[in-house]
Amino acid sequence: MKTIIEAENDPRRADLDTDYDALGARLARRGVDIEALVARAASFAVAVPSWGTGTGGTRFARFPGKGEPRGIMDKLDDCGVIHALTAATPRVSLHIPWDKTEPALLREKAEEVGLGFDAMNSNTFQDQPDQPLSYKFGSLSHTDAATRRQAVEHNLECIEIGQAIGSKALTVWIGDGSNFPGQTSLSRQFERYLDAMRHVYAGLPEDWRLFSEHKIYEPAFYSTVVQDWGTSLMIAQELGPHAQCLVDLGHHAPNVNIEMIVARLIRAGKLGGFHFNDSKYGDDDLDSGTIDPFRLFLVWNELVELEDTPGLNLAHMIDQSHNITDPIESLIISACEIQRAYVQASLVDRAALEGFRAENDALMAAATLRAAFRTDVEPILQMARLRAGAAIDPIAAYRASGWRARAAETRPAVAAGGGGII
Amino acid sequence: MKTIIEAENDPRRADLDTDYDALGARLARRGVDIEALVARAASFAVAVPSWGTGTGGTRFARFPGKGEPRGIMDKLDDCGVIHALTAATPRVSLHIPWDKTEPALLREKAEEVGLGFDAMNSNTFQDQPDQPLSYKFGSLSHTDAATRRQAVEHNLECIEIGQAIGSKALTVWIGDGSNFPGQTSLSRQFERYLDAMRHVYAGLPEDWRLFSEHKIYEPAFYSTVVQDWGTSLMIAQELGPHAQCLVDLGHHAPNVNIEMIVARLIRAGKLGGFHFNDSKYGDDDLDSGTIDPFRLFLVWNELVELEDTPGLNLAHMIDQSHNITDPIESLIISACEIQRAYVQASLVDRAALEGFRAENDALMAAATLRAAFRTDVEPILQMARLRAGAAIDPIAAYRASGWRARAAETRPAVAAGGGGII
Amino acid sequence: MKTIIEAENDPRRADLDTDYDALGARLARRGVDIEALVARAASFAVAVPSWGTGTGGTRFARFPGKGEPRGIMDKLDDCGVIHALTAATPRVSLHIPWDKTEPALLREKAEEVGLGFDAMNSNTFQDQPDQPLSYKFGSLSHTDAATRRQAVEHNLECIEIGQAIGSKALTVWIGDGSNFPGQTSLSRQFERYLDAMRHVYAGLPEDWRLFSEHKIYEPAFYSTVVQDWGTSLMIAQELGPHAQCLVDLGHHAPNVNIEMIVARLIRAGKLGGFHFNDSKYGDDDLDSGTIDPFRLFLVWNELVELEDTPGLNLAHMIDQSHNITDPIESLIISACEIQRAYVQASLVDRAALEGFRAENDALMAAATLRAAFRTDVEPILQMARLRAGAAIDPIAAYRASGWRARAAETRPAVAAGGGGII
Amino acid sequence: MKTIIEAENDPRRADLDTDYDALGARLARRGVDIEALVARAASFAVAVPSWGTGTGGTRFARFPGKGEPRGIMDKLDDCGVIHALTAATPRVSLHIPWDKTEPALLREKAEEVGLGFDAMNSNTFQDQPDQPLSYKFGSLSHTDAATRRQAVEHNLECIEIGQAIGSKALTVWIGDGSNFPGQTSLSRQFERYLDAMRHVYAGLPEDWRLFSEHKIYEPAFYSTVVQDWGTSLMIAQELGPHAQCLVDLGHHAPNVNIEMIVARLIRAGKLGGFHFNDSKYGDDDLDSGTIDPFRLFLVWNELVELEDTPGLNLAHMIDQSHNITDPIESLIISACEIQRAYVQASLVDRAALEGFRAENDALMAAATLRAAFRTDVEPILQMARLRAGAAIDPIAAYRASGWRARAAETRPAVAAGGGGII
Repeated sequence: MKTIIEAENDPRRADLDTDYDALGARLARRGVDIEALVARAASFAVAVPSWGTGTGGTRFARFPGKGEPRGIMDKLDDCGVIHALTAATPRVSLHIPWDKTEPALLREKAEEVGLGFDAMNSNTFQDQPDQPLSYKFGSLSHTDAATRRQAVEHNLECIEIGQAIGSKALTVWIGDGSNFPGQTSLSRQFERYLDAMRHVYAGLPEDWRLFSEHKIYEPAFYSTVVQDWGTSLMIAQELGPHAQCLVDLGHHAPNVNIEMIVARLIRAGKLGGFHFNDSKYGDDDLDSGTIDPFRLFLVWNELVELEDTPGLNLAHMIDQSHNITDPIESLIISACEIQRAYVQASLVDRAALEGFRAENDALMAAATLRAAFRTDVEPILQMARLRAGAAIDPIAAYRASGWRARAAETRPAVAAGGGGII
Repeated sequence: MKTIIEAENDPRRADLDTDYDALGARLARRGVDIEALVARAASFAVAVPSWGTGTGGTRFARFPGKGEPRGIMDKLDDCGVIHALTAATPRVSLHIPWDKTEPALLREKAEEVGLGFDAMNSNTFQDQPDQPLSYKFGSLSHTDAATRRQAVEHNLECIEIGQAIGSKALTVWIGDGSNFPGQTSLSRQFERYLDAMRHVYAGLPEDWRLFSEHKIYEPAFYSTVVQDWGTSLMIAQELGPHAQCLVDLGHHAPNVNIEMIVARLIRAGKLGGFHFNDSKYGDDDLDSGTIDPFRLFLVWNELVELEDTPGLNLAHMIDQSHNITDPIESLIISACEIQRAYVQASLVDRAALEGFRAENDALMAAATLRAAFRTDVEPILQMARLRAGAAIDPIAAYRASGWRARAAETRPAVAAGGGGII
Repeated sequence: MKTIIEAENDPRRADLDTDYDALGARLARRGVDIEALVARAASFAVAVPSWGTGTGGTRFARFPGKGEPRGIMDKLDDCGVIHALTAATPRVSLHIPWDKTEPALLREKAEEVGLGFDAMNSNTFQDQPDQPLSYKFGSLSHTDAATRRQAVEHNLECIEIGQAIGSKALTVWIGDGSNFPGQTSLSRQFERYLDAMRHVYAGLPEDWRLFSEHKIYEPAFYSTVVQDWGTSLMIAQELGPHAQCLVDLGHHAPNVNIEMIVARLIRAGKLGGFHFNDSKYGDDDLDSGTIDPFRLFLVWNELVELEDTPGLNLAHMIDQSHNITDPIESLIISACEIQRAYVQASLVDRAALEGFRAENDALMAAATLRAAFRTDVEPILQMARLRAGAAIDPIAAYRASGWRARAAETRPAVAAGGGGII
Repeated sequence: MKTIIEAENDPRRADLDTDYDALGARLARRGVDIEALVARAASFAVAVPSWGTGTGGTRFARFPGKGEPRGIMDKLDDCGVIHALTAATPRVSLHIPWDKTEPALLREKAEEVGLGFDAMNSNTFQDQPDQPLSYKFGSLSHTDAATRRQAVEHNLECIEIGQAIGSKALTVWIGDGSNFPGQTSLSRQFERYLDAMRHVYAGLPEDWRLFSEHKIYEPAFYSTVVQDWGTSLMIAQELGPHAQCLVDLGHHAPNVNIEMIVARLIRAGKLGGFHFNDSKYGDDDLDSGTIDPFRLFLVWNELVELEDTPGLNLAHMIDQSHNITDPIESLIISACEIQRAYVQASLVDRAALEGFRAENDALMAAATLRAAFRTDVEPILQMARLRAGAAIDPIAAYRASGWRARAAETRPAVAAGGGGII
């Protein structure tokens, strides 16, 4: 990949230099040092979810792509490609049991492809072939104590695997809830969940964090135990200092102001990190920044404004479903779009902004944010990649590499899915 | 089943008589003849979707139940049970290719279980094992002419099968759309769709109807070709007099007033029928009347208010996903809830209502509707069932019958699904 | 009014007795004692907002009615009528400065019409003629300390007036927020709000409560300081044990499960009470129970399920905008609809429900709730009113009384409003 | 104003030239001629609503600004300033009766400030002091024929005034609907509306157009007669070739894909124009491009893609409520943001886009749109303004002009509003 990247970068360097200088000069007029922005871009990192390298689907169908990864080893190979091309995705987030493998092998492979491991993800929203008790009616909040215990133990196992591979966090997202008013006691279901989570929390190593992830609906369609950030906050408060809240950009009710939730959770000392994606209707899990790039920017604007908050330590991860694109391409472009929003938010003229806010000059305050947003920071991102040995144009380099075609030769085709679960 | 129904009805008859008489007396005071309402209840019919007899799921998982139908013959058996218990579901709607079988066998089985066939449903939102061209990027609106042709031919085949079994309508719902702004030309994709549909329409027998079904999103998450009733109306206008619009209660944007769409489509002469279900968030496909029973009543209120509109001929069908209940039970109870809303709407004091409307007495007009809605018409529904030889309490009778347990003996268990398509 | 009520009740008593007996017999078969339900209905109380007695409007227009109250004394007269007819609204909630008057006169008038006083409502979302500093850019969260102080002092004055008339709570709802991304610092605006509220809280008498009321949007259209229940919870936690959260049914994002918020706030020990109304789109402030009566029932179902929670002490109030109806009529019917939902929730067969929940019998659990909801409890409500000396049919009695026409004789007509504030 | 503009432009010219050249070079590398884009920017025009020059408000309050226009003459002065600074707003849209004045005086004033007149707007959502019949319960769809006739005559009068001042279109937006299920017959209310509109249409001069504007809700909160584009399309089809649909960006249900509606209405030959604004929750009427600039771009992307559609002739207007900003500033910046989206949409590489679409390369198709969107076209807009004699930085020039302060000297302060219409 190194060779291809260099071969692809070479003919693009002159134009990049031109654009970079022009932008640098323009930013200098605004008192902004372009090198400082390149440094910020270079420091940016977002984790890739192992499962994101496979083609996703809907309840209606899954249309597989060519050369899909056969297992976690293939997935780590794919993740390695993404990081090599972007220099922005140094860690992978595993999902157990999908990625369950001998930890030593995971470590070895990760080292080979130059990656580390991010938060572990447990799965109690599906039944596995060998699983004694079903999660059809819930897992950590199930009415049956044995089923809850099984779900707790699965989470503890995720921690155990994570420890063996150097992870430092466990993300718990469950589908528990109900499909009909009356089906469950909303209050007691929550108590059962809290009780189970206390057992998971008790198994957390000292230097680990536990992330609670909320979602308004799906797969449960009337109520969901951890339905919004308020409930997630109550959980994190109840469990203790190592428990924090994870914000998935697509898990909110329509029209909700997500950047405000970000500000509130930071204030409560409970923001743990993000699952990035984009959406128009529900939890659409589309590529980050493709539907409402300004919203992504506004989230980052909060993070940059509050970046000096003591104790703030955020885990950034992509969480998307790539149904019709090459997943590697979607992950590459998503990482770049998230990074773009971070850099745009970094060049907001904060002194001017604060001045306008102090005077209640709403128009100029808003214009100040927009001026940063509409600055085309592409040369900054490209320069950060070039200097890190990654690709000026990662998609072009990826396509030039023929990675997918080669993968298709060794990885057998997968059958189309869906059909019975409408 | 007959024997069980009678055995179950016997101990309930006395209470029913008491309740029926009390309600009859109360209604008589309002000038309403309870027998007329029983007659309306008895005339009610809603079709059952063959696929609704299997356990549904989400993109996250499917948790199968016991004794799931192995194919269309089992499904027809299950549908027969539903109709025997409710006397409200005399027809089944098939889905091709899921239910593809020798038509003669279908007719024979249907006759055996006392059912007829409703609208045919085509499927171009999935790829079938033997299918030459993929629908990953669309079907009737695909950029590739051969793929569109394949989709057209599939629809024509559905008509052909339907003719052989006595169906009189084809419902076309497609998932075509796009996941990203720019992916498709919104305008030309629609032209391609219209062009393909013209070919389907051309193959329609003289006494058939073609139903266009819209849906705001899912499986496409940025744009959908037939996204709302406005587009569906344009399609029906473009195709001709045999083309009409189908309204699925869960396929609308949040907050939309569905009963108003009903009124508008009737006015345009283009309302063809319904897919009944209930929902709180998206196309949740929950059991009819379980989330917002008043909304269901308001839809029926329009239908009853406008029932004398010349040419109105509606196809009513249930379209739900039964993820955590016994599908037969959900279909039974849904049919009863839809029937309940129809009977409630039938006892609105329309003369009084019109008087209040004429005087702009909004408070009393609204109270008049609510008075009908809150009337507990259960004795009317029970009496209609009893007289038709069905069950006073269909769920109790079904459970007493041991149908599912017996089915589980002959129908092998199915593995849990989901897992790869998040 | 007493005479009219009796005259109106007399011809309705026989039918009521018949219906009451029939319902009683039917409930007895289910093991429910109708007298216990009448007792619960009789114990029900919801406060009326003084401002609800005037005709409301939108930013587009206000269309005044006849005989509108000229001030708080007229409003108390109107509230007295509502309580006399329903026996369900024994208290009035005042809004300062709209209702600002000599406390002794308020007490005297309230005693005259048989009413007490509920929570006080402050107003810092408008500018008053004599007000030194404007709330155009915020009040309790304003960037300017003097403006915040002015808003604090106004709230303290509300407490002072409230103490003089026997109120025991202050409800704080503010419109503070922003209309443009960037206009305010979401985090510091919240700190300023908390700081101001600490001063208000410090002025709270020992036996008072402070209610924080959230709202997703309007009048601010990009961000609102107290935008959801999560933020409201943080506020109540920050301020102390006398601070609680108030839930207005119309102040949530689309699709949100409100009954779940109710359960969560009770669990956190922070649910203080409700502002009842109904809505389809935004904060529509329509009459309670007219748009989604099942949702109202589900909220009450939580309240009844959790009614024995230690320390639970809820303040119930109506908060509606009566734009096209006689406000007295809307308040009467709304009080009755809220009471209806309470009684329906009270007859849920909780033992059966818990059994179904324990067995994950979702279908029967849901059916159990619906069976209660569809029970027509009108005879129970009527009997409770009759026994309390109120009207069997309060709207009919009100209309028979000629109250509005007489009011129109003494209260001068008001000009239509609106026009400049689109 | 000319002098100030020149004085403000002078020190900005050098930087503009630098930025313009750098952008020109960059675009040239992509094969785009910057001069062609300047020409398109120069050809852009959007109308200003006369009422937008006054401070707006909500049902809660209106906080007036300084120097608010006292009437249409002041408003035209303000509109003249906006056009002088932006060269993008050559026409004003009047609202009757708010702007009712001797036509000759209007023409004279418009000529003086260099403006023409756009579509006329009628008002039947408010009652005027001298109005015989109230619109409380509707106007063009009222149950009372005389009220409908009054509303028709008002619209005919608007046409008459419009003819006298050179307008060529009438926009009809009504608030008619209902607040409660049952209040009106959804079907007959629509028939009455259509019947009334036929009379308005009959009064339309040969070279005029009639715009039907839909809105999902507000001021009616349960149903609205013209609630969505489907109904608006039916109206335009029913009335005839001069009737078209107007799309206000804030009048849709949550999550709706507006650009798709644009494509559909163009296909139907019925798109008449736009009311531009931005929104996050409901009809927030915020400044264009401030909440979701990518959505605005996507609307323009459709318009540019379909700009050669025969017969397409669009009326563009701003329709916003400026509650907390100087309305002149908001109108200036909104006109510029709409123009920006148009220019961005104009530089989409359409040949590349079509290639990617043909290959179903969703990722690159989407990236192609985003590449255009993130291009900072500010130098193009500035150059277009400079060459037209307008301001490089219109807000800076406006503030330097001292216009508002001078206006405040001659225009008396207005009292704060709101208070009675919650």
